[in-house]
Amino acid sequence: MTEPLAPGAVIGILGGGQLGRMLSVAASRLGFATHIYEPGVNPPAGQVAARVTTAGYDDEAALRAFAETVDVITYEFENIPTSALDLLEPLRPIRPGRKALKISQDRLVEKAFLSDLGLKTAPFAAVDDAEDLAEALEEIGTPAILKTRRFGYDGKGQARIMAPDDAAQALADMAGAPAILEGFVAFSHEVSVIAARGVDGSVACFDPGENLHEGGILRTTTVPARLSPMQRSDAVLLAANILNALDYTGVMGVELFVTPSGLLVNEIAPRVHNSGHWTQTGCTVDQFEQHIRAVAGWPLGDGQRHADVMMENLIGDDMDRVPDLARDSDTAIHLYGKAEVKPGRKMGHVNRVIRPPR
Amino acid sequence: MTEPLAPGAVIGILGGGQLGRMLSVAASRLGFATHIYEPGVNPPAGQVAARVTTAGYDDEAALRAFAETVDVITYEFENIPTSALDLLEPLRPIRPGRKALKISQDRLVEKAFLSDLGLKTAPFAAVDDAEDLAEALEEIGTPAILKTRRFGYDGKGQARIMAPDDAAQALADMAGAPAILEGFVAFSHEVSVIAARGVDGSVACFDPGENLHEGGILRTTTVPARLSPMQRSDAVLLAANILNALDYTGVMGVELFVTPSGLLVNEIAPRVHNSGHWTQTGCTVDQFEQHIRAVAGWPLGDGQRHADVMMENLIGDDMDRVPDLARDSDTAIHLYGKAEVKPGRKMGHVNRVIRPPR
Repeated sequence: MTEPLAPGAVIGILGGGQLGRMLSVAASRLGFATHIYEPGVNPPAGQVAARVTTAGYDDEAALRAFAETVDVITYEFENIPTSALDLLEPLRPIRPGRKALKISQDRLVEKAFLSDLGLKTAPFAAVDDAEDLAEALEEIGTPAILKTRRFGYDGKGQARIMAPDDAAQALADMAGAPAILEGFVAFSHEVSVIAARGVDGSVACFDPGENLHEGGILRTTTVPARLSPMQRSDAVLLAANILNALDYTGVMGVELFVTPSGLLVNEIAPRVHNSGHWTQTGCTVDQFEQHIRAVAGWPLGDGQRHADVMMENLIGDDMDRVPDLARDSDTAIHLYGKAEVKPGRKMGHVNRVIRPPR
Repeated sequence: MTEPLAPGAVIGILGGGQLGRMLSVAASRLGFATHIYEPGVNPPAGQVAARVTTAGYDDEAALRAFAETVDVITYEFENIPTSALDLLEPLRPIRPGRKALKISQDRLVEKAFLSDLGLKTAPFAAVDDAEDLAEALEEIGTPAILKTRRFGYDGKGQARIMAPDDAAQALADMAGAPAILEGFVAFSHEVSVIAARGVDGSVACFDPGENLHEGGILRTTTVPARLSPMQRSDAVLLAANILNALDYTGVMGVELFVTPSGLLVNEIAPRVHNSGHWTQTGCTVDQFEQHIRAVAGWPLGDGQRHADVMMENLIGDDMDRVPDLARDSDTAIHLYGKAEVKPGRKMGHVNRVIRPPR
């Protein structure tokens, strides 16, 4: 497929969470229908999709049937089993492509890729056993953080090693999974760049947002971020560098640490990203529509920001605040339609326009 | 139901066109699911709804089953058969209520209601036969316009009478349907107010937009409209007057003619309105979310406008312009997912932010 998708085409989305939900809504604005593929029943994205397949990623017949109904396949999360991708790839274009998935599915491969590009990252070393860990701690020192190489998110699959004595427990927490030790970085704050690359190779970045985490989960993103003009252009250039190196199509979230010696890449996510939700309020073409435009072969929005915005995640019991939030007319509410409130669960977010004092 | 609907509730929408589609998307932002009831197959709203019932308004079993799955019922068009409303009303709250539907389903009843409120309208007279028409023309004069009392939209069911000789043909065009003769009004331009009233009686109006029609179909709406401060407050006050008189819940479109002797009410529509689409780009809470908030018993957005916007409808072959429009990054595209392009058919719209020259 080199021609842009015409309105009426069907976009297949692997994963039916809130990102799939907002992608589906964005697709509808451009006249596309969506087909959601998701193992869990009654997924948030299913409420705003033309079609939903409820099946596992090992269900070959379901995957094949799904592919046959769609014109292009994208995804809302990076941990799609390789076997499913192997089956889907010959049937329909998968955007972003396999290369980005392969890299972002494994923290070690990702770090090595970034280093090879000449980008700075936290010091890291592969850890498969106690011996590796001892060597890595020798080299990197403490404090450090041990992470599973695969399937981690929102702080899950991570163990801090504040002193060498913590090493055994940290390794036990990995439950035998291949891991990576990362050194702590003395950063002043974290920002992220939501970058997009079109089928034609054009790149557009949104203004970097400044992220605040609590308990390993993103709490707020604020634009503009505290960055010097030089840091701002560095951030955008290094994001473009990553997308070009991957011959990427779609939106990517690039998390960066701001340090006295420059920007370090924390991690990349080959999909729309929580730290880009502010674009729904701050930009004509938001990150969700930008991603749909990219995978559909449409021209990208230019990423221009027309407002200062603070995005705040609504996590767990934050849902109790919704009636109050609804009374604030500068606050755009986005709820995800999840049936059950659980501690630590992302239930929605709000975008607040920050107006200058008068 | 006096308590606000909690996220997770289901909003039933009668009608599955583009207005239902955009209502459904707005409902999803507040965590609501929607169930669309529509006689036509594969309706635009169905692509972004949790559930679709394809059945006629005379299908009592389908209407009853629909009502049982929803918490509140609203609609995207005013010409819902009375028998369907009679069946649904005892089962679930219908918002806006029957009074507004009764009035807006009949141009004669509507004009009489507005006159009784002390609001100015074009001169009008009921026309059931040639004798009525002759009398009405005597009183109102020419040019005038003969319209069916019911089921007219986008200039359909209308005939102009430029001179008394046109009378017979105009009456024949009505095909025996009860009609209303309306005098021409010397107006400089048309504006519309998108007004909302909450369950608690609070009223919020969006800034009036200025409408340009072509061939009886809305072409563009621009905010701000050309209105003096006094006209602006008149427009908002008379809209509030109408909503309060109907004990209305939801969004209403109020079309006004601007004349040297003041504002005349052209017509009212008890629903979200094409001339309010600009609010998607100009306001934090747009007309679709405003309507959902109202029918769900939530607080209303305040209607504040943060940008100058021109909305342009994409009608029929305007769809050919979409690739070019997609290259303009100040243009928000909204397509309706209609399978077939037809002349005069509303296929989508764009909202363009109007930036002051630098």
